[in-house]
Amino acid sequence: MLGLRTPVTEIKWSETEEKIAQVAFDKAYQRETTALIEEIRQYTGAIATLDDTWRLHDFLSSRRHDIDGKYDYRYPVLLFVFARLVQEKWLDLSELDGLDREKLAKIASIAMM
Amino acid sequence: MLGLRTPVTEIKWSETEEKIAQVAFDKAYQRETTALIEEIRQYTGAIATLDDTWRLHDFLSSRRHDIDGKYDYRYPVLLFVFARLVQEKWLDLSELDGLDREKLAKIASIAMM
Repeated sequence: MLGLRTPVTEIKWSETEEKIAQVAFDKAYQRETTALIEEIRQYTGAIATLDDTWRLHDFLSSRRHDIDGKYDYRYPVLLFVFARLVQEKWLDLSELDGLDREKLAKIASIAMM
Repeated sequence: MLGLRTPVTEIKWSETEEKIAQVAFDKAYQRETTALIEEIRQYTGAIATLDDTWRLHDFLSSRRHDIDGKYDYRYPVLLFVFARLVQEKWLDLSELDGLDREKLAKIASIAMM
């Protein structure tokens, strides 16, 4: 299958690619953080009861678990991380331009799963 | 010691006392809820990072645990509940006026511990 020959854990990253990856990763992280804070602010404005408050708590528990697991900057898993960020629209595939063709193909392919 | 003769778990509550207790309990609950929601709103307005967000989450975890344990409307433990609410100033002892002298003395005594 096109571009899926090397096992992802053995893929090498050039220095240039590492820089592109770091910038893209930070962008996605910043976007998701900003969106989350905005969502909390909007929700908090509408809290009227203790039940609402605990719903915010449940929401934060879930988001914390999710985000802690997602933003894992280690090269052996980075293609999966980017695929997920693309899938969830925190990152556009075009923001990874400069990575080699095989990496981009793998990310696009995993993101479509 | 004055007013501490009957074990608290064996204390009887008249119908009038039950009504007074329920009203006082609800008042304290409402005050603490309102204060908590206000605190969350103020804090949320100042959230700027994901770390701030997780600090809110930690704060809510702690408050939820605390509040869930505190508002326990069962007569065998109610004097302790009121004593704590008085101690934490969610309730003024005067708002329990109408309970018998022994109950009020026990609540005041436990609240000072």
